[in-house]
Amino acid sequence: MNLFGKHLVCTQDWSVEELEAVLGLAAEMKKDRFSPKYTSLLAYKTFFMFFYNPSVRTRQSFECAATELGGHAQFLEPSSMRLKTSKSAGETIEDAAKVMSRYACGLGIRILEDKVQKYGDGEALIREYCENATMPIVSMAHDKFHPCQGLADVQGAREHLGSIKGKKLLLVWGHGALARSWCSVQESILINSRLGMNVTIANPKGYDLDPEVIAATKKNCQANGTKFEVTNEPVECYRGADIVYSRNWMSPNAYDAEKGFQKAKEVEQALKYTEWITDSKKMALTNNALYTHPMPVDRGHEVSDEVCSGKRSIIYDVAENRLHAQKAIMALTMSKFDYKPAGKDSAKRPVAA
Amino acid sequence: MNLFGKHLVCTQDWSVEELEAVLGLAAEMKKDRFSPKYTSLLAYKTFFMFFYNPSVRTRQSFECAATELGGHAQFLEPSSMRLKTSKSAGETIEDAAKVMSRYACGLGIRILEDKVQKYGDGEALIREYCENATMPIVSMAHDKFHPCQGLADVQGAREHLGSIKGKKLLLVWGHGALARSWCSVQESILINSRLGMNVTIANPKGYDLDPEVIAATKKNCQANGTKFEVTNEPVECYRGADIVYSRNWMSPNAYDAEKGFQKAKEVEQALKYTEWITDSKKMALTNNALYTHPMPVDRGHEVSDEVCSGKRSIIYDVAENRLHAQKAIMALTMSKFDYKPAGKDSAKRPVAA
Amino acid sequence: MNLFGKHLVCTQDWSVEELEAVLGLAAEMKKDRFSPKYTSLLAYKTFFMFFYNPSVRTRQSFECAATELGGHAQFLEPSSMRLKTSKSAGETIEDAAKVMSRYACGLGIRILEDKVQKYGDGEALIREYCENATMPIVSMAHDKFHPCQGLADVQGAREHLGSIKGKKLLLVWGHGALARSWCSVQESILINSRLGMNVTIANPKGYDLDPEVIAATKKNCQANGTKFEVTNEPVECYRGADIVYSRNWMSPNAYDAEKGFQKAKEVEQALKYTEWITDSKKMALTNNALYTHPMPVDRGHEVSDEVCSGKRSIIYDVAENRLHAQKAIMALTMSKFDYKPAGKDSAKRPVAA
Repeated sequence: MNLFGKHLVCTQDWSVEELEAVLGLAAEMKKDRFSPKYTSLLAYKTFFMFFYNPSVRTRQSFECAATELGGHAQFLEPSSMRLKTSKSAGETIEDAAKVMSRYACGLGIRILEDKVQKYGDGEALIREYCENATMPIVSMAHDKFHPCQGLADVQGAREHLGSIKGKKLLLVWGHGALARSWCSVQESILINSRLGMNVTIANPKGYDLDPEVIAATKKNCQANGTKFEVTNEPVECYRGADIVYSRNWMSPNAYDAEKGFQKAKEVEQALKYTEWITDSKKMALTNNALYTHPMPVDRGHEVSDEVCSGKRSIIYDVAENRLHAQKAIMALTMSKFDYKPAGKDSAKRPVAA
Repeated sequence: MNLFGKHLVCTQDWSVEELEAVLGLAAEMKKDRFSPKYTSLLAYKTFFMFFYNPSVRTRQSFECAATELGGHAQFLEPSSMRLKTSKSAGETIEDAAKVMSRYACGLGIRILEDKVQKYGDGEALIREYCENATMPIVSMAHDKFHPCQGLADVQGAREHLGSIKGKKLLLVWGHGALARSWCSVQESILINSRLGMNVTIANPKGYDLDPEVIAATKKNCQANGTKFEVTNEPVECYRGADIVYSRNWMSPNAYDAEKGFQKAKEVEQALKYTEWITDSKKMALTNNALYTHPMPVDRGHEVSDEVCSGKRSIIYDVAENRLHAQKAIMALTMSKFDYKPAGKDSAKRPVAA
Repeated sequence: MNLFGKHLVCTQDWSVEELEAVLGLAAEMKKDRFSPKYTSLLAYKTFFMFFYNPSVRTRQSFECAATELGGHAQFLEPSSMRLKTSKSAGETIEDAAKVMSRYACGLGIRILEDKVQKYGDGEALIREYCENATMPIVSMAHDKFHPCQGLADVQGAREHLGSIKGKKLLLVWGHGALARSWCSVQESILINSRLGMNVTIANPKGYDLDPEVIAATKKNCQANGTKFEVTNEPVECYRGADIVYSRNWMSPNAYDAEKGFQKAKEVEQALKYTEWITDSKKMALTNNALYTHPMPVDRGHEVSDEVCSGKRSIIYDVAENRLHAQKAIMALTMSKFDYKPAGKDSAKRPVAA
């Protein structure tokens, strides 16, 4: 398996075997974090990070990842770039991507719903970079998907549950004032259904996720012979869950055709659904479920303090795994690392320039 | 002595022996700046720098320090972090500190008077990070203290005077348009009284520093049998001084209970005291004193050009020492460095993960 | 030849032999990009980048350059620096430069026309840093010159043409909405005339470049016995050209004595000259010329897509050469690298601290 040069926009674009290579390497990297096996993989190399949206967690974990692989991550804000838009003169994405490919070993891009005119524009922009770059592109979260978060979620769940096959994931909407992106939750249902979990999605009416992603998740479950359901009920859905993942997300009506993303309206509406919070009473209905969340957590809205800081909460482990998963992705797609999954004979990977 | 993992919020929190370890190592590091003894202490490790207030000097010296120890400093602005406040949903400091501890070997925080609602809030925030982090925190200047500046001051003074014990430090207010923080000057009187100097503080009426810090300084002097005085007189105070440290600082009335820090009012008032400037005439009254200042200097207000650029000015040496003192702090608190002060037998320090 | 510590504000300040050393080393570095000969030249050293103007390309290439030489580039925005101005209290450039020299191995400065009150103020600021710093300063583009771009241009031209001596460079104005700086184009005519090209400058009436730079270029041509001409004609100027360099630039009237740089007025005026675009029809008049541009390109205004993406376009190669030229400059001026041009016996350079 040779992942050198491969883009990662959504885990659904990669084969299960490829995703398992990332997960296997990430687990090894976590055990042996500063091993010389890894610390010079990106020596003297540059990884560009393009933040259309600011971020602290994502920046921290990607910049650490590059550092721990011996390389350097450049923090770049495209607002200081004179890119061509429908309204102003500037550089085309083709030109930007081609030049950056001369300098760097890879490019991460983050662009969320509030920086685009309509849902899907962020993904389109990333895919335009992918078409023009001659280096690998990785999504650092965009309006549709967040592949690194999805991989970190799975790594964390396996650390605590062993195999996740046949177990039940409850992805449940939480109320709150943040009008959050669909990217983390959509990635979660895709990768977990892919890797064999039963998936239940629970949200109030009017908060359905992208129908295409729902359809793809359903298909993943059918292929694995697992259960898939969507419900608008906030309590009974917890029964039998092995992992509870609560998170606020915006409604499909968040975009106004003219004015773009309407945060204030979303927040006002989302705060009304106060029964949508993960608390101990609901957790008692589960199969002693783990609690997870991609962070930052909006405590008191998405989840009670008691659950979030409780013994079954794995939020810090999952946050840490962002680092390891991203190191594994970067090692496999941006370096000449010849990864052999433990206990397997893998042919030498061709060494790229 | 094992300083691994220890927070540094104010030099007063550390023992004299611990401070001497920093000063000893800083001096060795200055002599042998790029020695392989030091250049891999933080190899592949990340140091986070949290700038609630922008800064150039502090950023330059901390980022250089991490680089010279083989590590990488990430420049982070919490404005891009969705932290919980009394007014908005977001992440708690507990969550932020716990996750960052998974990624980094240490965290520096800078938060000055104009970013907080009242004096002391910056210190409280840093101490909340200290309580929740499992990595060492270092103040990069906050509303009350500036430990790295204090250590750099002492290092500079010793380079030029040898021992500072029993010598006289004059800390004197200067007029000007900057309404400056108390942090550097309060740290200076604490550490210098601790290490055996006689301390004279001179400022106009209405510009007294924090009474608790004044009391602690007085107590330090009593413990050492040295002299301590506060005066409102701008000339005679120079007599017999071995070090003159002039600096503008805000009045205790700088905060309005509702509107927070009131810079304009402070500046207007501070510009009136034109007799408060360190010039050659006053310096002539001293014991051929060194002139120092934590920079940036407001020339023509705090000090005359003649004194600031004169032969007895050590401002550039002290500024350089910020780098060495910070390298020493980082080596001792964030790495496995087994520092043995020259000429002493020190037991091996336990090696931390 | 010892370039250690030498400032680079304009290529005209350096001897041809010195420029050839940069070009020679840049070409070698491009061939053997990550050779251990180069990757520890700036190990553990810090290069400061001072961006009065934001930039993506320049930042990317300089920060990569430092990384590939084993060092670290700090991205600094002087807006967070409290510098003294005619209107506000703050630090003098003398103080800033002297302290920074204690920390870093070199300093890059970028300051363009829209950040200064009048043409030439940016150059004056850089030269003030040069006078006060004890480390080498390199212009990362300022209102008058852009030495790194000029060197990258020559490197690119030679890669495709072999020798450029006696060949014809056409520097031609393009219309557009960006009111661009004179820095790249003025550097280009200086260095190319210096190295033996015939130079033709073509622009509409009212768009003449700095008369002093024109005079210096003319003098360079006279010294080399080559041709120099300025024309206001947009088509016939292409005849016989070996390199066509098109670029929009502002008029000499861009500055209002009181209000500074007037972009809107410039853009409005520049958009009228629609015949000033490099297209295939005009390129057909040339001696199968290369097409170049310092990027970002304003396609459809400065040049047609057909030419810009055509076989004779070397824009991406030139952009890549920014990296190599800058690595060579940094290696020669900021490290102890003992560069011996291939095939020449060079005496050991004295090793600096």
